[in-house]
Amino acid sequence: MSKYDIIVLGSGPGGYVTAIRASQLGFKTAVVEKESLGGVCLNWGCIPTKALLKSAQVFEYLKHAEDYGLSVKDADKDFNAVVKRSRGVAEGMSNGVKFLMKKNKIDVIEGFGKLKPGKKIDVDGKEYSADHIVIATGARSRELPSLPQDGKKVIGYREAMTLPSQPKKMIVVGSGAIGVEFAYFYNSMGTEVTIVEYLPNIVPVEDIDVSKQLERSFKKSGIKIMTSAEVTNVDTSGKGVKATVKTKKGEEILEADIILSAVGIKTNIENIGLEDVGIAVDRDKILVNDYYQTNIPGYYAIGDVTPGQALAHVASAEGILCVEKIAGLHVEALDYGNIPGCTYASPEIASVGLTEKQAKDQGLDIKVGKFPFSASGKASAAGTKDGFVKVIFDAKYGEWLGCHMIGAGVTDMIAEAVLGRKLETTGHEVLKAVHPHPTMSEAVMEAVADAYDEVIHL
Amino acid sequence: MSKYDIIVLGSGPGGYVTAIRASQLGFKTAVVEKESLGGVCLNWGCIPTKALLKSAQVFEYLKHAEDYGLSVKDADKDFNAVVKRSRGVAEGMSNGVKFLMKKNKIDVIEGFGKLKPGKKIDVDGKEYSADHIVIATGARSRELPSLPQDGKKVIGYREAMTLPSQPKKMIVVGSGAIGVEFAYFYNSMGTEVTIVEYLPNIVPVEDIDVSKQLERSFKKSGIKIMTSAEVTNVDTSGKGVKATVKTKKGEEILEADIILSAVGIKTNIENIGLEDVGIAVDRDKILVNDYYQTNIPGYYAIGDVTPGQALAHVASAEGILCVEKIAGLHVEALDYGNIPGCTYASPEIASVGLTEKQAKDQGLDIKVGKFPFSASGKASAAGTKDGFVKVIFDAKYGEWLGCHMIGAGVTDMIAEAVLGRKLETTGHEVLKAVHPHPTMSEAVMEAVADAYDEVIHL
Repeated sequence: MSKYDIIVLGSGPGGYVTAIRASQLGFKTAVVEKESLGGVCLNWGCIPTKALLKSAQVFEYLKHAEDYGLSVKDADKDFNAVVKRSRGVAEGMSNGVKFLMKKNKIDVIEGFGKLKPGKKIDVDGKEYSADHIVIATGARSRELPSLPQDGKKVIGYREAMTLPSQPKKMIVVGSGAIGVEFAYFYNSMGTEVTIVEYLPNIVPVEDIDVSKQLERSFKKSGIKIMTSAEVTNVDTSGKGVKATVKTKKGEEILEADIILSAVGIKTNIENIGLEDVGIAVDRDKILVNDYYQTNIPGYYAIGDVTPGQALAHVASAEGILCVEKIAGLHVEALDYGNIPGCTYASPEIASVGLTEKQAKDQGLDIKVGKFPFSASGKASAAGTKDGFVKVIFDAKYGEWLGCHMIGAGVTDMIAEAVLGRKLETTGHEVLKAVHPHPTMSEAVMEAVADAYDEVIHL
Repeated sequence: MSKYDIIVLGSGPGGYVTAIRASQLGFKTAVVEKESLGGVCLNWGCIPTKALLKSAQVFEYLKHAEDYGLSVKDADKDFNAVVKRSRGVAEGMSNGVKFLMKKNKIDVIEGFGKLKPGKKIDVDGKEYSADHIVIATGARSRELPSLPQDGKKVIGYREAMTLPSQPKKMIVVGSGAIGVEFAYFYNSMGTEVTIVEYLPNIVPVEDIDVSKQLERSFKKSGIKIMTSAEVTNVDTSGKGVKATVKTKKGEEILEADIILSAVGIKTNIENIGLEDVGIAVDRDKILVNDYYQTNIPGYYAIGDVTPGQALAHVASAEGILCVEKIAGLHVEALDYGNIPGCTYASPEIASVGLTEKQAKDQGLDIKVGKFPFSASGKASAAGTKDGFVKVIFDAKYGEWLGCHMIGAGVTDMIAEAVLGRKLETTGHEVLKAVHPHPTMSEAVMEAVADAYDEVIHL
């Protein structure tokens, strides 16, 4: 029986990062993977979707070349080539993880791992033991009872990434990050897209102003949006698919080739031996403390299987923290109030901290500042005037409570707010940090200035 | 004679921002402008060049559409349309400043202003007085004796922005931000471009690794680069222009249609009455103290005419600080060691603080970290793997001494480093600020991790 210091179950962005950090810290480490190194993120999530979206973005440029003084004839996409490029990128990244495992002397155990009592894991009949076992099995697309996925006409994100041919019409159910990214992608490729969202606004976790801006931008680009709407029945018996959508106005039948169900995730906690070991689970999540220890000593859990935000960067941060604690390093618990979230449609969305509504609901006295990209010189020059930066400060103590961005490239701009909030910056320190001109990032400075009635370009 | 609290001489990004902040602070304010509101930055600099560069960027996408699974026929540019778009953007921005002046109740005095003793300004024969006069007359293209500009074949940045037709061959003398941005733009449009740089590396103010990366990228895109090279003579007598270029290997004659001289700037301090008032000037710059007061009470100077970095965002920051001090607000002197600099060719460059060489020359014990975009998932998905983030920390005290970036979109990423440095962050605080995945901004976190031997994806 092979013995390790640390075995990580699952090699997604939680698992493989945990393994690398563990190895750096001197632990003899193995990672168990049932499918592809890198997990959903690298193979079926973050990375291949960004590749698809890049093709969509470039296709938009092709379609609007004249706006930039350029000309093309017969701008067209090859749907299969776009998908193929995306798969190539994913494959490259997965090979990259393979290389990293080798470089860091991490054993990759291929197969389905099942936890056993006594800090053991059975992988397809072979047993391994470790001083510490980190569960990082992640999650998959959640299925609604009213919307069972058949993988053909009613699909999840995984199938949406590799459809054999482009659908003419598509219904996207759910408008979180995954839903709107695919809605944008398919609409850009020429598919007729309708979003069906149960809540009153799309991207419902975002600040309401962001939701409204995205709705405006999406409608302008031809995406149909139904909010406060629910798919109550699906009929796949015919050539395509018929969805019964219930709204305040009554019921409506939508026809499409494909329905993409993007209504959240379901953790992968079945059949991995949690019950055998006695690991406590609540509402689909493994319970852990600040250092990701489960109720059973020697067993840890990180990433989507735990209660924090189900995001790749959260999983990575949790895994690093988990093994640093095991190594006896001084670690501070992760601040789940300072986790950025990003959506990569066009315009992009990035946000961190409290929305205006959340701040008000908490009874906080706040200062709100907003700067639209329509007033930004760089946005004008780049032709990307949609969107804004909105900031929320505590009026009394000056704490930067929240930052909400929608516009071109904002997913690369939110790090400033995350770091500033971590360092407990005040608004005036942001204001007096000289932002380069002309950049989109000036909008952060100007939004803060707006909160303090010092905005220049409004 | 009209009397103001504050008159600002010049309406560039220093002047007009100063005027707006002055007005916000309750001062009766006027701005004097001899040409177009917004000055060089809005009309002939930052903004219209970014518009040209956006067309170039989109044109690159057109030319490489197949890389993204797309296809086009006859991708072409209309040089005059590209220029026209850029002029339209500049015009729009200048109108924007006009609106801001009106909204802030700032009088715009059109004409050439000349300072008079007794806190007065003569504008084309009409006299105005103020309690405080802020000089913000900016700068223009510097002329080398060996390279006199005729505005036709030997030109400055201004003419380069509005050439009536596209040159087939162009020599760019000087490889600071202006030089390399035009070199990139014209090369992308199809002009044969040669850069002639006096110093051993292009973008010589940048960290040597950045210079080398840009040189590689530029050479790959077909730009010819001659370093440690000097134009000693120019012959414009024939159809085109012949430049004698002296290098270590000897002399060489280059032929071209146009030579762009981009060898720095010369301040606009002639004929504005500095001598009449007795304002002290040293080596082409007006001398000021930390609050931009000249040696003569009531006269201030900000922006390119003063010794700080000649950058739009520096001018704006100086102007705001200057009038805030006049208003009696508590202000801290600007930290010229924390000013970001950006270059918007492709790949973009953004940097702040000390280069590795500067840090070593100061005898500092440093930790250096570097993360290449070739190891970034987002860069792979976007097809933008050129470049890196390099960070420099003080080994003893952990101070973030410098951050140097080259790659897609880095000009919007440098703000994180500026704010972090302002807030005296340590490397570990940057590391533990969760950067969203997948973004280019993760490279900052990873570069810092590399400095501390904790990098994950290398």
